[in-house]
Amino acid sequence: MRTTFLTFGYKEIQTPTFEHVELFTEKSGQGIIDELYTFADKGGRNLTLRPELTAPVIRFYVNQLQMEPKPLKLFYFGNCFRYDRPQKGRYREFWQAGCELIGTKTPEGQAELIALAYTLLKDVGVEKMQGALGNLTVVRALFNHFNLTQEQQQEILPLIDKQAFDELQSTLENMGLPDEQTSKLLTLLQTTDISLLEQALQKDKEALEQLSTTKKILELLSSSFGITSFTLNMSIVRGLDYYKDMVFEIEAPALGAEKQLCGGGMYDLVKLFGGTSLPTAGFAIGFDRTVLTLETEKYHFPTCPTHVYVIPIEEEMIPPALQLTQQLRQEGFFTDVDLVRRGVGKALKYANTQHIPICILLGPDEQKNNTVCLRDMNTGKQTTIPQQHIIKELKQHLKHQ
Amino acid sequence: MRTTFLTFGYKEIQTPTFEHVELFTEKSGQGIIDELYTFADKGGRNLTLRPELTAPVIRFYVNQLQMEPKPLKLFYFGNCFRYDRPQKGRYREFWQAGCELIGTKTPEGQAELIALAYTLLKDVGVEKMQGALGNLTVVRALFNHFNLTQEQQQEILPLIDKQAFDELQSTLENMGLPDEQTSKLLTLLQTTDISLLEQALQKDKEALEQLSTTKKILELLSSSFGITSFTLNMSIVRGLDYYKDMVFEIEAPALGAEKQLCGGGMYDLVKLFGGTSLPTAGFAIGFDRTVLTLETEKYHFPTCPTHVYVIPIEEEMIPPALQLTQQLRQEGFFTDVDLVRRGVGKALKYANTQHIPICILLGPDEQKNNTVCLRDMNTGKQTTIPQQHIIKELKQHLKHQ
Repeated sequence: MRTTFLTFGYKEIQTPTFEHVELFTEKSGQGIIDELYTFADKGGRNLTLRPELTAPVIRFYVNQLQMEPKPLKLFYFGNCFRYDRPQKGRYREFWQAGCELIGTKTPEGQAELIALAYTLLKDVGVEKMQGALGNLTVVRALFNHFNLTQEQQQEILPLIDKQAFDELQSTLENMGLPDEQTSKLLTLLQTTDISLLEQALQKDKEALEQLSTTKKILELLSSSFGITSFTLNMSIVRGLDYYKDMVFEIEAPALGAEKQLCGGGMYDLVKLFGGTSLPTAGFAIGFDRTVLTLETEKYHFPTCPTHVYVIPIEEEMIPPALQLTQQLRQEGFFTDVDLVRRGVGKALKYANTQHIPICILLGPDEQKNNTVCLRDMNTGKQTTIPQQHIIKELKQHLKHQ
Repeated sequence: MRTTFLTFGYKEIQTPTFEHVELFTEKSGQGIIDELYTFADKGGRNLTLRPELTAPVIRFYVNQLQMEPKPLKLFYFGNCFRYDRPQKGRYREFWQAGCELIGTKTPEGQAELIALAYTLLKDVGVEKMQGALGNLTVVRALFNHFNLTQEQQQEILPLIDKQAFDELQSTLENMGLPDEQTSKLLTLLQTTDISLLEQALQKDKEALEQLSTTKKILELLSSSFGITSFTLNMSIVRGLDYYKDMVFEIEAPALGAEKQLCGGGMYDLVKLFGGTSLPTAGFAIGFDRTVLTLETEKYHFPTCPTHVYVIPIEEEMIPPALQLTQQLRQEGFFTDVDLVRRGVGKALKYANTQHIPICILLGPDEQKNNTVCLRDMNTGKQTTIPQQHIIKELKQHLKHQ
């Protein structure tokens, strides 16, 4: 993931593990306190373990980076903490990989951001993903178009967020919205046809502009980035107070119920934290869920096994065995050496349990003749080779593994 | 550092950021609480941000890894927290790289551990280091040899730890230790000549055994690992309750007052945490101090600069520019693209401030002819090249940077 971020021109940023609790209540409201690990330090400061990384990164930007040329592309990989009921894909300490794009709101800027999220997950090995692109300005325009009061909006938002459209329908009917209107709103919230929305909102200039941007983003994703798995979806209403305009999500079907892998969009925190307002966007990928997805998809996780195990066949051979070990390490081989004097038989057995492909045995005869005995643990074949050929031999043997 | 750990046959381990507070008070006594970030969670558990990583790793070992073949080689890289007065090289959140070697106490095991600490720092670029090797069993034997009471030992330990030998001398005199004995103890605590210690402690079998191991460790470090910067030093008395037998430290003169980069030794925590007792050793490297050392030594830190900046010279060129950008990224180039439509002149200026060595300009003529204009930002030279040669050209240009 780090490499992918770097290829997209992003730079890594690290922020502290705890922050003043106000940083997060200012962003997300007092309601978030129930989910936070808060504590007072010995100086009486109200601190909290960070529940996410966007607020800390933007605080850092406002304090230290406002004079940097724009756009600023910052990525992070860090642990976060939420006092939540632990379950599959939801841990109290969890890891997020994410980024913030500060200083642009062009369609190409937004498309690149979404393409980055998708590419991160694809490059790391996730096979099946589904992306959805929404827009909160358009959702607000729909609410106005159907004359829903602020109170009514608050009531139906959680239902839209859960995609509970049956429940939404009966709630809208209970609110007194005519059947025809209810049915139209439900269609517009679920349609993937942008022209239906343009038609419905043709008098709302701001909404039309956002729909035009949305269209351009989808075009660029498909034509320039080759990403066709994003569809229009106006029922994405994540954090209506916090996000504005574009929002997007990526889900992995492999995850089942908790299937969201990534969420993001445009937001406006800089001004709230005392900086000069400018367009900002970002996303966060749930790292633990990414691992769960890969596990479910039977991804073959790479391991870092030891390449070589060096066995001194008697006590006097320990110093030259260590010296040889150190030489192999300097050449970059992952090399272990018997440190418990277990004897040749047990040492070979140990190497076997550890799936180490090659053992090197060093006895007095080999030492005298400047040779070593190299044992291929897969074939069991032992060959005596001159010490000066050992690097070459190891490289050849490991290439064939 | 990760690579060096892997070449030594160590595997990475990660533990949670917070633990039950008892984990650390059991290891280090109630006194440590003043330095801890402790808090009660919403379930009333007494938790603490980890102040170090040895106790968490050994807890993990006892819970999960006791059945693994020995020796077990585990390394970590993690953040720790101490409520300390912040100063240069001492932060309230700081990073440690370290490891635990579980299940061997052979001289070769101990020598390899020390060699690993030294190699980690050397490979990462630290130039000047001084290592010291002590032994707490020998120190205790010295105290017994001079008939110092438990109370007297407690009084002089902090002075030895600070290497405040003048103050130590007057304190010993005040305790009524004869001048000759005081002078002899001071000599033995500071000598680098192991035979002086062997002579003084010739009746203490346990101490003699430890001195023999110490000698072997120093020999192996020098002959097998090529490390000659460690000297004998019995005034290393770090954590007398916690460590046992071998202890070692590595200092960087570049750091000034807070010059310790690494500390470690043999200890016995497994039994305390309810596991089956076995020899354990480990060390921790202060990562922030390592960075400070490298800064003081004028180390040239590697950067990850963007390789290429793609500039669409007009709005219609944005989609093909994004497509080209994405191709370059897939080839592994760190590629950025103008996302704010700043115009060619400003875009080139931006690339200059970011020290990006190559710009690619894409206009309608280039697009029509399947070419791009490649600008070398160091020479200012622009060349028009076919799009299918771009990867080859970029590789050549970047090789010459």
